[in-house]
Amino acid sequence: MIDELIIGLDLGGTFIKAVLIDRDGGLRSETAIETQAAQGPKHVIGRLYHAAREVCDRAGCNMDAVLGVGLGSPGPLSADLAVVVKSANLPGWEHVPLRDHIADLTGRPVAMTNDANAATYGEFWLGAGRGAKHICMLTLGTGIGGGVIVGGELLHGHFGNAGELGHLIVAPGGTRCRCGQRGCLETIASSSYLVEHATREARRGTSSALAAVLDAQGEIDVPDLLRCVRQGDSTSQRLWAEACAAIAAGCVLLHHAFNPQYIVLGGGMAAARDALLEPVRREFAEQTWKLADDKPEIVLASLGGNAGAIGAAGWFLHLNDRNLV
Amino acid sequence: MIDELIIGLDLGGTFIKAVLIDRDGGLRSETAIETQAAQGPKHVIGRLYHAAREVCDRAGCNMDAVLGVGLGSPGPLSADLAVVVKSANLPGWEHVPLRDHIADLTGRPVAMTNDANAATYGEFWLGAGRGAKHICMLTLGTGIGGGVIVGGELLHGHFGNAGELGHLIVAPGGTRCRCGQRGCLETIASSSYLVEHATREARRGTSSALAAVLDAQGEIDVPDLLRCVRQGDSTSQRLWAEACAAIAAGCVLLHHAFNPQYIVLGGGMAAARDALLEPVRREFAEQTWKLADDKPEIVLASLGGNAGAIGAAGWFLHLNDRNLV
Repeated sequence: MIDELIIGLDLGGTFIKAVLIDRDGGLRSETAIETQAAQGPKHVIGRLYHAAREVCDRAGCNMDAVLGVGLGSPGPLSADLAVVVKSANLPGWEHVPLRDHIADLTGRPVAMTNDANAATYGEFWLGAGRGAKHICMLTLGTGIGGGVIVGGELLHGHFGNAGELGHLIVAPGGTRCRCGQRGCLETIASSSYLVEHATREARRGTSSALAAVLDAQGEIDVPDLLRCVRQGDSTSQRLWAEACAAIAAGCVLLHHAFNPQYIVLGGGMAAARDALLEPVRREFAEQTWKLADDKPEIVLASLGGNAGAIGAAGWFLHLNDRNLV
Repeated sequence: MIDELIIGLDLGGTFIKAVLIDRDGGLRSETAIETQAAQGPKHVIGRLYHAAREVCDRAGCNMDAVLGVGLGSPGPLSADLAVVVKSANLPGWEHVPLRDHIADLTGRPVAMTNDANAATYGEFWLGAGRGAKHICMLTLGTGIGGGVIVGGELLHGHFGNAGELGHLIVAPGGTRCRCGQRGCLETIASSSYLVEHATREARRGTSSALAAVLDAQGEIDVPDLLRCVRQGDSTSQRLWAEACAAIAAGCVLLHHAFNPQYIVLGGGMAAARDALLEPVRREFAEQTWKLADDKPEIVLASLGGNAGAIGAAGWFLHLNDRNLV
């Protein structure tokens, strides 16, 4: 029997990640190349094709022989999961029919979903949510994405945008979000907003530790903030505690909406590991109900940076096996 | 071909409702009897059986001939949807294996789900959500229940308690809910809390209109409050506006979690019709994102008080047709 191989692509604002993977999730090759997003959609689509060819070449596999391509893209996407409606991180992307472009270039069938959904499917298929039928995932990065598996299926909803969990409102009337709402989870716990809050505190002079970082480096990133937390800086500790409490508040909403077995925390901020997991678990236990013994377990993602590409490939395979691509 | 008939039962704190219904949703008979909840679980189980027999008798149908029984019960239920774990409105109910009791008494297969899920399935099958694949419903009554249809399936989640939408937190740090959380939707927009808030205002002397109702009747109910709203009482208007804004905030959460086609508002408070629907729609449009053209339509339930019994029967039929009961 011929190996059945699938290409997984994960389109990010900075990097495109690609994997070539078999039916059992065995990784045959992988690559990461720069997106070069500033050069616009046409160029980026060429880069995606380039990455797809590269994983095939590295594994000595002809692209014609692959079963198909799974693709995770920033969204929102159209309801039929064919078109990138727009993207905050990809300049010039407005109603780009990305799925069909990639199908034309590769000559293979393509299944697309948003990037956070792809990562969620990856964790469900081969990672922290393996074996479960109901999981939610928060991808804690520059923004906050989300994904939901319901009964073993990725949830897209009627309009294709289910699981936009970074835009659950956890602080009504709070900070204005890039999406237009106020008090989205993303405005408290995403790395971009967290860095913005930390920089503001440094400039205000409320934290000499943060001010020192800003003076030395000209900017503050999340690892810097975490270092200040560990060194006992009270302003940094407050910001981090607020972020963890907001994530926990999001988990309370997911608990009652989806009643999942697991809530998986992934994305760049999950690199903080126990510094993230422990306060989130503590706050969640504090905030959520005790009426029934039905609390999801909050866990860290386990696939790392390839979750999106792996999950996109897995999702293609899932749809392909049911003749849905 | 013999008619296939299904019994639908809806167990409430005050009334038990029962219907006998055919495969196409045609109503053959119905009844409503008092629950007599104070007399405990054993008595109430007998009352459920009585109601089931009554709808059969009225239609001249032998119970042995019915396909089976759908049953909506207050929850939380056990994860296998067989046991009522406890209930705020049914004294003495702790771990009652209700599904099997009803199966033993009727001699027919039984499918159980919680009461709000049953109503949601009813609206999905034959009511305001007919033809959709993704809907959410809020049952606005003494408490606030909820239900979610995902891809045509009632969502129960891993622990059986998905869609507990009255316990979505819309006012962090707010009023303590009976469930132990703070700021649940239920603490602002359920009729019991709304009446509690109105009574407090009447006693405080902030509303002469509410105080007059309380003096004359000894209590205030939601229709009284609505009458005061229409008569221009500003305190009553504020309470009602807060309830509608809280419901809208719940709808924003549902928008991003489930991306449904419809959000259906049902339960006793939906009797307010446009006085409920218009402010909720307006607040929802105000609060939710405009990033994508993916807003659910908020609509009123259309099946009235029988939604739960009808939906329970429909859900039994759905499971039965897939050999799942």
